[in-house]
Amino acid sequence: MDDKTQVTEEGGSRRARGEGRGAAARRASRSGTGAPPSLPYIQRRIGSYEVLDEEGLAIIEGNADTVLEEIGIEFRDDAEALQMWKEAGADVKGQRVHFPRGLCRALLKTAPSEFTWHARNPERSARIGGDATVFVPVYGPPFVRDLDGNRRYATIEDFQNFVKLAYMAPSMHASGGTICEPVDVPVNKRHLDMVYAHIKYSDKPFMGSVTAPERAEDSVAMAKIVFGDDFVENNTVLCNLINANSPMVFDETMLGALKVYARHNQACVVSPFILSGAMSPVTVAGTLTQILAEVLAGASFTQLVRKGAPVLFGTFAASISMQSGAPTFGTPEPALVSYGAAQLARRMGLPFRTGGSLCASKVPDAQAAHESANTLNMTLLAGTNFVLHSAGWLEGGLVACFEKFMIDQDQLGMMQKMAQGVDLTESGQAMDAIREVGPGQHYLGCAHTQANFQSAFYRSALADNNSFEQWEIEGRRRIEDRANTLCRQWLEAYQPPAIDPAIDEALLAYIAGRKDSMADAFT
Amino acid sequence: MDDKTQVTEEGGSRRARGEGRGAAARRASRSGTGAPPSLPYIQRRIGSYEVLDEEGLAIIEGNADTVLEEIGIEFRDDAEALQMWKEAGADVKGQRVHFPRGLCRALLKTAPSEFTWHARNPERSARIGGDATVFVPVYGPPFVRDLDGNRRYATIEDFQNFVKLAYMAPSMHASGGTICEPVDVPVNKRHLDMVYAHIKYSDKPFMGSVTAPERAEDSVAMAKIVFGDDFVENNTVLCNLINANSPMVFDETMLGALKVYARHNQACVVSPFILSGAMSPVTVAGTLTQILAEVLAGASFTQLVRKGAPVLFGTFAASISMQSGAPTFGTPEPALVSYGAAQLARRMGLPFRTGGSLCASKVPDAQAAHESANTLNMTLLAGTNFVLHSAGWLEGGLVACFEKFMIDQDQLGMMQKMAQGVDLTESGQAMDAIREVGPGQHYLGCAHTQANFQSAFYRSALADNNSFEQWEIEGRRRIEDRANTLCRQWLEAYQPPAIDPAIDEALLAYIAGRKDSMADAFT
Repeated sequence: MDDKTQVTEEGGSRRARGEGRGAAARRASRSGTGAPPSLPYIQRRIGSYEVLDEEGLAIIEGNADTVLEEIGIEFRDDAEALQMWKEAGADVKGQRVHFPRGLCRALLKTAPSEFTWHARNPERSARIGGDATVFVPVYGPPFVRDLDGNRRYATIEDFQNFVKLAYMAPSMHASGGTICEPVDVPVNKRHLDMVYAHIKYSDKPFMGSVTAPERAEDSVAMAKIVFGDDFVENNTVLCNLINANSPMVFDETMLGALKVYARHNQACVVSPFILSGAMSPVTVAGTLTQILAEVLAGASFTQLVRKGAPVLFGTFAASISMQSGAPTFGTPEPALVSYGAAQLARRMGLPFRTGGSLCASKVPDAQAAHESANTLNMTLLAGTNFVLHSAGWLEGGLVACFEKFMIDQDQLGMMQKMAQGVDLTESGQAMDAIREVGPGQHYLGCAHTQANFQSAFYRSALADNNSFEQWEIEGRRRIEDRANTLCRQWLEAYQPPAIDPAIDEALLAYIAGRKDSMADAFT
Repeated sequence: MDDKTQVTEEGGSRRARGEGRGAAARRASRSGTGAPPSLPYIQRRIGSYEVLDEEGLAIIEGNADTVLEEIGIEFRDDAEALQMWKEAGADVKGQRVHFPRGLCRALLKTAPSEFTWHARNPERSARIGGDATVFVPVYGPPFVRDLDGNRRYATIEDFQNFVKLAYMAPSMHASGGTICEPVDVPVNKRHLDMVYAHIKYSDKPFMGSVTAPERAEDSVAMAKIVFGDDFVENNTVLCNLINANSPMVFDETMLGALKVYARHNQACVVSPFILSGAMSPVTVAGTLTQILAEVLAGASFTQLVRKGAPVLFGTFAASISMQSGAPTFGTPEPALVSYGAAQLARRMGLPFRTGGSLCASKVPDAQAAHESANTLNMTLLAGTNFVLHSAGWLEGGLVACFEKFMIDQDQLGMMQKMAQGVDLTESGQAMDAIREVGPGQHYLGCAHTQANFQSAFYRSALADNNSFEQWEIEGRRRIEDRANTLCRQWLEAYQPPAIDPAIDEALLAYIAGRKDSMADAFT
């Protein structure tokens, strides 16, 4: 959209940026952490798959405007949000806000279509929006499935280990947020330990706490210790998950966090959390209509808080089993929803969040993999910019699984390679190879293969491609067994990124001060 | 392509056909076989994903023409094929055929862009080409992984069981060909038992033998017993896998079978069998160039044999591990190859075959599922018409696995639902539901949900979506355990489709006569 602000504070052409990224990758490859080198965020060279034509998009957009106008969205906030909507020209009845057609879209013109999510290591900063795709770990599980096969409540040690793994995973572009809930830490204090872990054990960009406005303020305050006050106020260092309470409600907690982050120019990922059939209609088009209405209301509200604050069009789409009411994942209908939502987001000029490696399975078996792969393939081809839950998700999001994290991050590597598309350079065309080899021969030793074999194909560290006999000799191991071994190796080899000791001390002092100011709370 | 023959021998508009298909599905649902009702072949209502733009396609097409002209393709046949190519205007040197630019494309103008693959039950006949997608079982494995977890040589009983399962699987649209190699039957006789099993235990369309010209003749002869001589000569009842011996060779066996089938108006699936890096260059564009050249040569040859004979643009794309040389599956590069090949096929106006549920894993674990799902999602979105290996493939195609067949066929059901796209009818838009429910409520009991819940979401018979506690009570079963149980249930409940006893007797008499005429051969 021509009238959208393009946040390009980092400056420089894409080509220049690309060169810098190459240098970063080369440095990373020499870091000796035992893991393969980290890759920069994805710049897609493949197109986006679409499931709606112009007519379909117009129907859904029209219907969403009708929902916003006739039904409205509830803002269950203190009076502040409702007052802001009144002043913006909305019709407010109680907590229900009715929006004149086009109001939300007009407000969103000040939202950036792209922005940079800054990391404390500038080489790990990621673009959000446009042709960029950023993979972010699972978010939210209270349980873990640990490396001994136990399903148990998560601890801060688990959390730190996931941060380390995300740091080492080459195609994980961010450290994430609440990778798991460290329930051994009081609920009103754990955000401090989580944010600290992201800063201390990784140098990739991370997410802030959203479970209370003061926890959002803590996240911003700690970011300021790392990045400096001015930098934080004028750039984006935190992307923050603001779920709609679907259908058609934003609750006080989420609005509180949204206001904090938007005021500080930090990004809000405004995401309807949809289990179709329960939180939205059982149809794809109906679900899309509701998602669009909710995003329009929530995202445009960020612009009332601060014009130009970065905001994402988020969509968490799943269905329910109509027999049991249980959530289901990796099924076709939520895929259609996400493809359609990505199209709606592109038309609004907002970065888009969906997908990941979602599943309902209790173990990292073929069910988990099918569901995750169905979701992840869709995520890539939809042109998703911000991929939450891209690794580690198990059991409907109740469990963060170490083995699955390893399997998923391997799949992310495949997606990153896929996103490069088809090389049509002279070397890519390989006519010399075809001429050299000729009918009935093989390409294994030809000059073109020798020159290109190292980068030719994605190499999985987990897939077993050997003979059955070799696989038997090696102990008939399933992929989760190999993932378990690799995970232990990575954690063993992990080396933390350097951090300025003065910053580290200041963070620890801030945390200690905040913790001292509060009694422990566990609910 | 306007100048292409449209084989529409079955007549009738799509709408009329659709109604017939609905009736068939309803009848199938009353068949009481224990399996869900069979679905008709897919008519895609979603678009195709493309990875090449016009410029990229033109580069590859130009390069393929150069390969055909400069390097040529070897036809390792008796003199007949080479003589036919000479007469068609090609430059033949020894077994190497060089094609003037444009010759193959010109010949292919007589090949149909769509045709019907007739089943003995007309309601199971499938369209090949256009917006139709047909799922066909795995093809070729000498081994099975049986329901007791043993990996062993396949038998004719295994073969019959797979035919029964394919018959019962609702989204399996064909009975297939060599689902596994029944190595307990002499190699020169087993094709008779395989073709008979397809006819006797299923009424879905099937494939003929290609391992020798006389076995192809036997397949045609048996088809004629079922369909009648005239019908077979003027319609297509057999789709037959003709692999190129890549790079750039067609061998005597494949050419012999091709000639038999094309002469009888039966379809040839001309498929380069590519492990990139070994049988083709290590690049996507180079591989596509070679595939296109091989298909142009092999497919156009069918038109020299019989103008108008149906032929498919086939592609079997995998890569190799550059460390070990082992084939790899579900990786990004073969996906890009297949997407590109589908585009090239559409431009030629030929039906396209690729994909399936391919994997390298030795067991139906998460590796098998990721690789299979990556392949299958691509297969659907590429707009593939004929999907070989769509269920049961394990271990690089060496093994036909019963449990994986069940898991895969469930995924095929998801793909079939996905292909329906987004319903934009008034019911699909669901505005009444959104109005009825309103903010903060749920959709579980609303009128729209009640009216649509049965068809709303794809229902998997294998995915476990229950709570962890319920899953524990039920024995902590993985999906392959549930697949094992369901497979046993289906085989227990199987009921054969009716067959005219006179036809059955004639088939058995034919087989007995043919077997008596040959000594057993085992190699």
